[in-house]
Amino acid sequence: MNKIEHIGIAVSNLKEAMETYEQLLGTACYKLEEVESEGVKTAFFKVGESKIELLEASNENSPIAKFIAKKGEGIHHIAFDVTDIRESMKELAEKGFQLLNEQPKDGADNKLVAFVHPKSSNGVLVELCQEKP
Amino acid sequence: MNKIEHIGIAVSNLKEAMETYEQLLGTACYKLEEVESEGVKTAFFKVGESKIELLEASNENSPIAKFIAKKGEGIHHIAFDVTDIRESMKELAEKGFQLLNEQPKDGADNKLVAFVHPKSSNGVLVELCQEKP
Repeated sequence: MNKIEHIGIAVSNLKEAMETYEQLLGTACYKLEEVESEGVKTAFFKVGESKIELLEASNENSPIAKFIAKKGEGIHHIAFDVTDIRESMKELAEKGFQLLNEQPKDGADNKLVAFVHPKSSNGVLVELCQEKP
Repeated sequence: MNKIEHIGIAVSNLKEAMETYEQLLGTACYKLEEVESEGVKTAFFKVGESKIELLEASNENSPIAKFIAKKGEGIHHIAFDVTDIRESMKELAEKGFQLLNEQPKDGADNKLVAFVHPKSSNGVLVELCQEKP
């Protein structure tokens, strides 16, 4: 893992949470993006070499809607930057980690992404992220 | 906030979790430390400019024991590096954030630390961290 690419935070109201995080982090949101395939609206903030990604559900079947219904607002996942996502997925599978995707898929912010099941990593939903060429 | 200093992950068994995270992150733990005042044993891993901190409760009154009893293992807090923790605490209090400490206290890894109540930050326990002089 090269670095923490971002931390994903599930929020109920993106607009209100953006105001809170602008105040907390002392920096403005630099990108708003909807990922329809994932059912999320996202807002990104830069912090050092990493980002904070706020996630609001855009429909009731969104994983974020289900997460908030079960656990409330809070940290949803950690994403790590990797150089070659297919190679990282292969290595982790060989080490016994359970992957939630067989192939990388399109994520927000021009990334290929794949997820590791929280059961494999002490309750932490881990995302692998590779910048698209 | 200068950068993500670390992400704290609550685990039931530090030894087993260390093996998992060594495999996941592809790097060895570089520091083990017990913080008696907080009731935690910690293990640190470097990832880019940030760290992953695994936290095991060292007694049943530990905040980590209570967290795991309520929510299970998982991400416990995000810590941000700040230049002057007293100044950051003052600024956040003035902006309306609820702080859990009136004064900074000693944390793991040679840091002064203070916490922001999760109610102020969409369910996220936020730690401010300043390297001790």
